Amino acid sequence: MPVLPYTLQKPLPVPGFKVGSASCGVKSPDLKGKRQDVTLIVADVPAQAAAVFTQNSFRAACVDLGEKTVQEHASDIRAIIANAGNANAGVGEMERVWSQQLVDLGAKAAAVEANQVLSASTGVIGEPFPIERIAKTIHEASDSLAEDNWLQAAEAIRTTDTFAKYTSRQFDVFEQNSGGKTYTITGVSKGSGMIHPNMATMLGFIATDAPISADKLQRILSKVADVSFNSISVDGDTSTNDTVYLLSSGLGLGDEELEDTSGFEEALQEVAIELAQLIVRDGEGVTKFVSIEVTGAESEQQARDLGRTIAVSPLVKTAFAGSDANWGRIIMAIGNSGSFIQSNKVSIKADDVLILKDGNLHSDYTDEMGMAVFAKQEFILTVDIGLGNACATVWTGDLTHEYISINAEYRS
Amino acid sequence: MPVLPYTLQKPLPVPGFKVGSASCGVKSPDLKGKRQDVTLIVADVPAQAAAVFTQNSFRAACVDLGEKTVQEHASDIRAIIANAGNANAGVGEMERVWSQQLVDLGAKAAAVEANQVLSASTGVIGEPFPIERIAKTIHEASDSLAEDNWLQAAEAIRTTDTFAKYTSRQFDVFEQNSGGKTYTITGVSKGSGMIHPNMATMLGFIATDAPISADKLQRILSKVADVSFNSISVDGDTSTNDTVYLLSSGLGLGDEELEDTSGFEEALQEVAIELAQLIVRDGEGVTKFVSIEVTGAESEQQARDLGRTIAVSPLVKTAFAGSDANWGRIIMAIGNSGSFIQSNKVSIKADDVLILKDGNLHSDYTDEMGMAVFAKQEFILTVDIGLGNACATVWTGDLTHEYISINAEYRS
Repeated sequence: MPVLPYTLQKPLPVPGFKVGSASCGVKSPDLKGKRQDVTLIVADVPAQAAAVFTQNSFRAACVDLGEKTVQEHASDIRAIIANAGNANAGVGEMERVWSQQLVDLGAKAAAVEANQVLSASTGVIGEPFPIERIAKTIHEASDSLAEDNWLQAAEAIRTTDTFAKYTSRQFDVFEQNSGGKTYTITGVSKGSGMIHPNMATMLGFIATDAPISADKLQRILSKVADVSFNSISVDGDTSTNDTVYLLSSGLGLGDEELEDTSGFEEALQEVAIELAQLIVRDGEGVTKFVSIEVTGAESEQQARDLGRTIAVSPLVKTAFAGSDANWGRIIMAIGNSGSFIQSNKVSIKADDVLILKDGNLHSDYTDEMGMAVFAKQEFILTVDIGLGNACATVWTGDLTHEYISINAEYRS
Repeated sequence: MPVLPYTLQKPLPVPGFKVGSASCGVKSPDLKGKRQDVTLIVADVPAQAAAVFTQNSFRAACVDLGEKTVQEHASDIRAIIANAGNANAGVGEMERVWSQQLVDLGAKAAAVEANQVLSASTGVIGEPFPIERIAKTIHEASDSLAEDNWLQAAEAIRTTDTFAKYTSRQFDVFEQNSGGKTYTITGVSKGSGMIHPNMATMLGFIATDAPISADKLQRILSKVADVSFNSISVDGDTSTNDTVYLLSSGLGLGDEELEDTSGFEEALQEVAIELAQLIVRDGEGVTKFVSIEVTGAESEQQARDLGRTIAVSPLVKTAFAGSDANWGRIIMAIGNSGSFIQSNKVSIKADDVLILKDGNLHSDYTDEMGMAVFAKQEFILTVDIGLGNACATVWTGDLTHEYISINAEYRS
């Protein structure tokens, strides 16, 4: 049961982009015609591109290839092809060959050059990649290309996700020469928290018509990824294939480059944070959605590292699961962050309930008050370490029996 | 159900040491007279001392105090006092006062000076420390002091351990002047893997009559701790109170200092590894005992870090639980170690079954062969990263429903 107490709004079309999908039976020929598993995103004009990739040093071939293509052709990208059902990872020497063949198929389907195509694969690790099955049915994806097809893209990149993940934002720009204009950002993502083993991988594809050049896009995406995709944790494991692509059609469509990108950055950050949070909300076995806000740090990096240490602690996550305001486990996790912490400066709050103040249990605090917060489906844990002024937020879920069942009892 | 397929031998007495215990009802007055919870180890002569402590920066007061005493009086230690049931941690300003009072009680019970006494506390975090209850009943510990009482010490330091942990080794020394002599090392430990939250803490107390001075003892203990206590992992969490004390009575008893300490070091390493492994074997919810051997590393530290990354991965640990030879999860964990890994140099074996060879699935390998190994209660996972000649072994268990039940369903 995911923690999704609201309804997602249908994703908005983005001028300059068309989306299609196909049912190729990637995971197994039996699934052909039963579920969409290949996605094609095509830019009508050369798009500016940016990307962030997994930090895992065991990277799949599609990650290496995608990184190279973005580096060499960042201002001339025309398509993304992505498949679910097979990660094309851990298969030895053929991995590179199959990865290039997938890009070639994408180029043919989009009627563009291969070096204008980015790819991503997600699914089982260590199984031969069924390139022939994709070749045979990829035409379905080009046949179905349409501006208003982002929902299908979100569906087709799912593996064990229990719901499709997508969101859009619009923002207005007023510039002296051109007057006012509204731009759109639409993104889709998949992953139940970078934790699906053989079906590993977090993917995010974001498109916009805001006219911004590739180098600026990259700078903004890297910054935004830190406070969104890099600020979630389900179980601390990072997949071999994690990829986020950001494409912009604006310059290709003839708009003048935005001078002030602050409105874009703000909207992109909202999109990225929502796409990332949706992954936590769909985390394996998750029944709670917890925001961990770390304040009083010496740097944002220190705050984020500390938040992640708390977020990955099995003892803290089982306390969330048990609705147990077990602050002893939280201070244990704080102490394990690798930062030098002064215990008499640490304060802890759960929503508005002050538990620990400067290292001492708050005199008004009772276990019942803490339990009442921890029993909620969503709450905010605030940790102030009293060393400086920097802060960061990390989102995570709880660790439940269902997680063990998913990962120990079935071969995934 | 711990993974303990053999019977522990009764611990041997160590010349120069006496051990006693008391039932003080530390955790709750109801437990008084029902279980032993305070341990007293007394050296008949000034003992040489060494210690290693938790790396958690949230350290309990007893750790700070113990470290200071070892630094200042390493050649003149006369007693260890330890209690289970209350960690005397996370309780604010009184922590230091209670910690000193416990040492004072130990000094009185052992009839020595307070600065000759080391202490350790384990149990619930954040509860007032019941120093009066200990004061009232500590005489039981001095009354029961005897050479052959190590089993009682192992019992009295237990918290949620399902069995008492102890071991002994003897080694012979032949030196020109003194001829042959046999020395003893006896150790006790507690912990179900540094993972008991409110009852956190791994403790180890080791005594020997081998005549070795404090500075050498410290050097040897630090080295040995790396390949024993620091090479186990149950869930990656480190407690605020972890402590290992090593005392030697030999010089105090009048023996000449050993010139060649290699026999001692070897025996101590066996003791420390067994005490550490027993903690994994009793890990919360553990049903499997897995040795992770990392070879082909550039340094021992790199090998150990990589082993620990594999050992703490929830996906790897649930694969162990599910008897699933899920090597995709293992390469994912290897890639997350922070080391630069070349995927085409990585080989993986489970016992004698070669799974991956230089990054490629071995042609003879079948899932059935892997599953047969992973189904065993104990097995060895060997990971060769092909970069150098250094190696290290890390011991861990699996992650099961029972772990979730223990940590989420009961307030511990």
